[in-house]
Amino acid sequence: MNTTTGEITVLGLGEMGSAIARVFLDRGYRTTVWNRTASKAAPLVEAGATTAPTAAEAVAASQLVVVCLLDGTAVDEVLSTLGDTAQGKVLVNVTSGSPDQARAYERWAHEHGAQYIDGKIMGDPPYVGTPNARFLFSGSAFEAHRDALNLLGAVSYHGDDAGAAAVEFLAQVAMGYEVLLGFLHTLKLVRSEGADVTGFADRFAASLTAYQPLLTSIAKAVESREYPPDLGPLDVQFALMDDLIGHRESVGVEAVRMRETRELMARRIADGHGGEGFSGVYELLAGAPNQRAR
Amino acid sequence: MNTTTGEITVLGLGEMGSAIARVFLDRGYRTTVWNRTASKAAPLVEAGATTAPTAAEAVAASQLVVVCLLDGTAVDEVLSTLGDTAQGKVLVNVTSGSPDQARAYERWAHEHGAQYIDGKIMGDPPYVGTPNARFLFSGSAFEAHRDALNLLGAVSYHGDDAGAAAVEFLAQVAMGYEVLLGFLHTLKLVRSEGADVTGFADRFAASLTAYQPLLTSIAKAVESREYPPDLGPLDVQFALMDDLIGHRESVGVEAVRMRETRELMARRIADGHGGEGFSGVYELLAGAPNQRAR
Ligand SMILES: NC(=O)c1ccc[n+]([C@@H]2O[C@H](COP(=O)([O-])OP(=O)(O)OC[C@H]3O[C@@H](n4cnc5c(N)ncnc54)[C@H](OP(=O)(O)O)[C@@H]3O)[C@@H](O)[C@H]2O)c1
Ligand SMILES: NC(=O)c1ccc[n+]([C@@H]2O[C@H](COP(=O)([O-])OP(=O)(O)OC[C@H]3O[C@@H](n4cnc5c(N)ncnc54)[C@H](OP(=O)(O)O)[C@@H]3O)[C@@H](O)[C@H]2O)c1
Repeated sequence: MNTTTGEITVLGLGEMGSAIARVFLDRGYRTTVWNRTASKAAPLVEAGATTAPTAAEAVAASQLVVVCLLDGTAVDEVLSTLGDTAQGKVLVNVTSGSPDQARAYERWAHEHGAQYIDGKIMGDPPYVGTPNARFLFSGSAFEAHRDALNLLGAVSYHGDDAGAAAVEFLAQVAMGYEVLLGFLHTLKLVRSEGADVTGFADRFAASLTAYQPLLTSIAKAVESREYPPDLGPLDVQFALMDDLIGHRESVGVEAVRMRETRELMARRIADGHGGEGFSGVYELLAGAPNQRAR
Repeated sequence: MNTTTGEITVLGLGEMGSAIARVFLDRGYRTTVWNRTASKAAPLVEAGATTAPTAAEAVAASQLVVVCLLDGTAVDEVLSTLGDTAQGKVLVNVTSGSPDQARAYERWAHEHGAQYIDGKIMGDPPYVGTPNARFLFSGSAFEAHRDALNLLGAVSYHGDDAGAAAVEFLAQVAMGYEVLLGFLHTLKLVRSEGADVTGFADRFAASLTAYQPLLTSIAKAVESREYPPDLGPLDVQFALMDDLIGHRESVGVEAVRMRETRELMARRIADGHGGEGFSGVYELLAGAPNQRAR
C-alpha cells in the first residue's frame, strides 16, 4: 500500500529544505512551503510552490510534511505552533539530532494523532535528488511513503525505532573520523620517516577491500561473543605493540589508539584470551552495557 | 641483471625462518640452515637442507643469506659472530624491528663488505610461499634478488632507504588498529542503542570503497598543502561535533578521537580555514616536523 498523495509540505527553507522542496516540485508534487523568514520562499514560489503564512497552515495543506530546520530547538518551536493541524499527518523530520530526540518527536507525533518518520542526510544540498545524497530513514510509517522519499536520493531504511536513522548516522560519521584522523596521524609518521605519503595512501586504500570481510567477521564475533583469531592470536599481535608505540614516540607521532590497543590486549591476555582474536577486546570496552534497555 | 644463484642460507629456524627455508628447499635451492638450538634444523635436513655448525659457516655457504630471528637483540648477537664471512654476501633481514634498526644493519653490512636488504612480513608462517603472505622489502640491493625473494609471497618494494619496509609495515599495522579499535567502539555505540551490529558492519564495510578515492585525495592535499573541502567545508563538519560527542557521552561510549577531531577543527576554523577540508588538520598535528632530515 502506498498512501503517498501528490501533495507535500516542506517546513524550513534553508539550503537543505529548499533543495528538498525543489525535488518534489520538479517531480510534479503540489508543494506547499513555509519558512520563518518568508522571503526565502520566493524562488520556490516562482517555480510553482505555494507558500503558507504559518507553519500550521502549511501542515494543513498536505498529508506528508517534511520538517527541515536548523536543530532541535527550531523543531520544538515550530511543532509548538501546530496545534491540532498535525492530526492525521505524516511528519518526516530530517533535521539533525540525536536518537533520543527522534524518539521524543515520535512520541509527540503520536500524542498529536500524527505518524512520524525520522531522517538523517549525508550529502550536500546540490546533490539532493541524486544518488550522491544519502537519506537514512527510520520509524514504522516509512514503508507507506517509501516511493515519495526515494525521490530524495539514495534512501536506506533502518527499522521501526525512530532513533535508528540517527544511530546509523552517528555511527557512520564517527567511523569516518576514526579512519580519517588515524590516517592523518599515520601520514605524519610516514612523512616523518621521509617516505612517500601518496604511495602509502594508495596502498592502504587498495588494502581496504581486505577489511570488508574482516569487519563483517568482527561484528559476528561481537554478536556471538566468540572471538576466533582474526589478525592472528592476540599474544602474537601483542608482541608488536611495544615496537609500534616506541617507534611513534621516537618520531613524535601521537600513540593514543596504539597505547589503548596495547592496554586492552594486555588485559585480554591476562584474562586468558591470548589465543583469541582482537575482536575480543570488545568485552573490555568501558561504558555502555551490551544492550540498552528501551 | 639477476645475480641470484641457486644457493641460499637461512639463519634462524623458528616458525617463520623454517617456513622460509622450506620454500627455497621446495624450489630446488641448495639450502643451508643454522639455528641456535640445532635440533630445530632436523625436519629441514630431512627434506634436503644442509645444516652448518655455526652461523658463520652457514653464511659462508651462500651468497644470499636470510636472517629471521626473534628480534634485534638476537640479530645483533648473531651478526657479531660472523667475523669476515659477511664479505661479499647479501643479507636479507626479515626480523621484526624499527626503521632505524634496519638502517643500522645496513650500515653494519656496508662496513663488513656486504649488501643489505630489509624485509617485513605480514602473514602467518603457513602462508609463506603463497600470495597470502605479504613481504615488504627495501634497500638498494633488492632489485638484483627480486626473483628469489618473489618466491616468498606477495612481494612489494619500498625503495632504497633500508628503513622503508619497516615504515610501511608500522604504518599499515597502525592503520589496522585505528580502524579496528574505532570500529569496536562504534559497535558498542550501535549496540548500546539497540541497533544491529552486523547490519551496521556490512553497511560500513560496503562504504569503504568510497573511502578509497577520499584517502588518495587527502594524501594529495597533505602533499601539496592545499586542502580543498573533502567531506564538505570544515565549519559545516564542525557543526556536528558537539552532537556527536554529546551522544557518545550519553550512552557511555568513549569519545577520544571525536574530541580530538573537534578540537583540531576548532583550531583550523579559528585560523581562518573553515572553508577548507578536514585534511587541513594535518597542519596542526603535533610532533614530527614535516620531513625528517636523514
Ligand atoms: N546543508 C547541509 O549540507 C546539510 C547536510 C546534511 C544535513 N543538514 C541538516 O539539515 C538541516 C537544515 O540545514 P540547512 O543547511 O538547510 O540550514 P540553514 O540553511 O542554516 O537553514 C536553517 C533553517 O532553519 C530555520 N530556523 C532556524 N531556527 C528556527 C526557529 N527557531 N524557528 C523556525 N525556523 C528556524 C531557518 O529559518 P530562517 O530562514 O528564518 O532563519 C532556516 O529555514 C540541519 O539540521 C542540518 O544539520 C544540512
Ligand atoms: N610467526 C609469525 O607469525 C611472524 C609473522 C610476521 C613476522 N614474524 C617475525 O619473524 C621473526 C621470527 O619469528 P618466529 O615466529 O620464527 O619466532 P620464533 O618461532 O619464536 O623463533 C625465534 C627464533 O629466533 C632465535 N633466537 C632468539 N634469540 C636468539 C639469540 N639471542 N641468538 C640466536 N638466535 C636467537 C630462536 O632460536 P632458538 O630456536 O635457539 O630459540 C629462533 O630461531 C620475528 O622477528 C617475528 O616478529 C613472525
